[in-house]
Amino acid sequence: MLDFNITKLDNPKLERQLKDKIDNKTKPIGSLGVLEDIATKIGIIQNTTSPELKNPHIVMFAADHGAAKSGVSPYPQEVTYQMVLNFLSDGAGINVFTKQNGINLIAVDSGVVTDFEYSDRLIKAKISNGTKNYLEEPAMTKDQCTQAIENGANIVKDIHDNGCNIIGFGEMGIGNTASASLIMSCVTGMLLEDTVGPGAGFSKEGTSKKCEMLKEAYNKHINNIDIKKPIDILSTFGGYEIAMTTGAMLKAAELGMVIVVDGFIITSALLIANMINLNVLDYCIFSHQSDEHAHKEMLKYLKGTPILKLNLRLGEGTGVALAYPIIKSSVEFINKMASFESANVSKSNEV
Amino acid sequence: MLDFNITKLDNPKLERQLKDKIDNKTKPIGSLGVLEDIATKIGIIQNTTSPELKNPHIVMFAADHGAAKSGVSPYPQEVTYQMVLNFLSDGAGINVFTKQNGINLIAVDSGVVTDFEYSDRLIKAKISNGTKNYLEEPAMTKDQCTQAIENGANIVKDIHDNGCNIIGFGEMGIGNTASASLIMSCVTGMLLEDTVGPGAGFSKEGTSKKCEMLKEAYNKHINNIDIKKPIDILSTFGGYEIAMTTGAMLKAAELGMVIVVDGFIITSALLIANMINLNVLDYCIFSHQSDEHAHKEMLKYLKGTPILKLNLRLGEGTGVALAYPIIKSSVEFINKMASFESANVSKSNEV
Repeated sequence: MLDFNITKLDNPKLERQLKDKIDNKTKPIGSLGVLEDIATKIGIIQNTTSPELKNPHIVMFAADHGAAKSGVSPYPQEVTYQMVLNFLSDGAGINVFTKQNGINLIAVDSGVVTDFEYSDRLIKAKISNGTKNYLEEPAMTKDQCTQAIENGANIVKDIHDNGCNIIGFGEMGIGNTASASLIMSCVTGMLLEDTVGPGAGFSKEGTSKKCEMLKEAYNKHINNIDIKKPIDILSTFGGYEIAMTTGAMLKAAELGMVIVVDGFIITSALLIANMINLNVLDYCIFSHQSDEHAHKEMLKYLKGTPILKLNLRLGEGTGVALAYPIIKSSVEFINKMASFESANVSKSNEV
Repeated sequence: MLDFNITKLDNPKLERQLKDKIDNKTKPIGSLGVLEDIATKIGIIQNTTSPELKNPHIVMFAADHGAAKSGVSPYPQEVTYQMVLNFLSDGAGINVFTKQNGINLIAVDSGVVTDFEYSDRLIKAKISNGTKNYLEEPAMTKDQCTQAIENGANIVKDIHDNGCNIIGFGEMGIGNTASASLIMSCVTGMLLEDTVGPGAGFSKEGTSKKCEMLKEAYNKHINNIDIKKPIDILSTFGGYEIAMTTGAMLKAAELGMVIVVDGFIITSALLIANMINLNVLDYCIFSHQSDEHAHKEMLKYLKGTPILKLNLRLGEGTGVALAYPIIKSSVEFINKMASFESANVSKSNEV
């Protein structure tokens, strides 16, 4: 199941062709900065000097965390369920931003404690009604974990088959910054003190308490798992939305799609995906750097440069939705701007 | 002429109402970061808790600089003319990005050396065919300078009367980063060494040569002008596109419009506008921090926080066009997201 066949991208010839095309646009060389990097990256992913974005999607995975009952979040667990209903009523941030920017939004019940009426807008891919509480036992079994990865992969496969070539992921799950911090600590070796933050909005005191609880969870399990095995980490401390995102990213990379990475929780899924197959990073664009401070270190670990730094910490995929117009601009300029030749514009005397 | 009647914005009651409205949206408090600041600012400019963006415009002022003949830019002067034709053929960066993001684009001949066929898309507001070379004499007379300010103001007045309430400005003018550096040095007191950069793309050597030329120009005029008088600085070292932008910004503020500020050259116009009337800043949102390194210091001087940092240095108003979707998102979320009450979502246990 964990065998994703992801092509390593390395095409210096195409990279030179993309640079030539970009440098011949009617603008000073390099003057579109990060947009030029993005255009180049998408060109290489799509193996063309004329990249295109087709049928963009954000998939929002929702799941509950057993540890939420122990208070790893300031919000009560029922908020996951309530927020999914809010998505279905178009009332959440991600609804507003995807609608504004022409992105398709699909929600997935990856493991919310309550059931829903399902539809095209809310897919049932539930593994169970929430994870177990890792303060007592592993969050899920290894079988549940691989099933979640597989479900995420299958969802992306269907979306790809509908003509989508750029995809981002969002999440909703009370308690999931706690999971992300535990995963980050296991994967990067950083101390929990440095990976834990206020999440959805703990006070300084609440954040300290959260950190103490996570240390307890870490110490409880760390000698029973092999920290080199991504499934060990993910099944012990993860959530179903995180595991599905991991599978979704790996499948998206296998299918040659552009992956737009959101904030702290989604990037924790990428930490695991990257352990499973390093080539996944070749397909990733990082939409933003979250206000959850450890996200900056996650990005550094993955050598990812964020497009936006807007102190966002909402999740849901909102960073992806907000960065999308910039990504689109990158593709638009490389296809639509005139060249010096076509526009009869003189070049620099220094070139 | 320089008497702009700009209302100082100070409305703590409305600010509290905006904060309440934002904090009741279904999201953790503060989790939309910079978008919350932008929504608040626009609400205060428009004196409402339900701000709206209407008929957005970018006005691109083009003019030639006498000093270009002495080599303050690596590009030949004719590029200003050629690029205006490129705008009219929809081939420039600003065409691509304004079209993508639903922004109206109007070009203005503020003083290009060659004439054009004028239309609704290219307004004639020319003061003369390019400025004089400040290495020899002041760039313009004080009358020409105030006329340019007035022309810029009149153009904004017309656009406002067509129902526009948010406007940004762009520029095209070979040699205009040199003007911006001289203006910045005069206004802020910073050394020219620290305000001069590669502009459209000088090498390190070319940048040094540019700096030496600008020092010569500075020393030639500095004892003949009153550095406390904005018109003295602007007429001696400015360009017609910069002077028109100054007038355009002051009029936009007088009319209660949201001003979206572009990069290095446009911000130099704001330095002058701010000397004429400090209240103009209350209406400004800063779209981006340019790769021209002194722009960072300009923003610091004006206490402006940029939305984007994408290493852009193209000008034309491209930073405005690229940041616009984020500004729009701010207004969308405050109007369209559900509240905790309307969506029946539970609040944080800590609140």
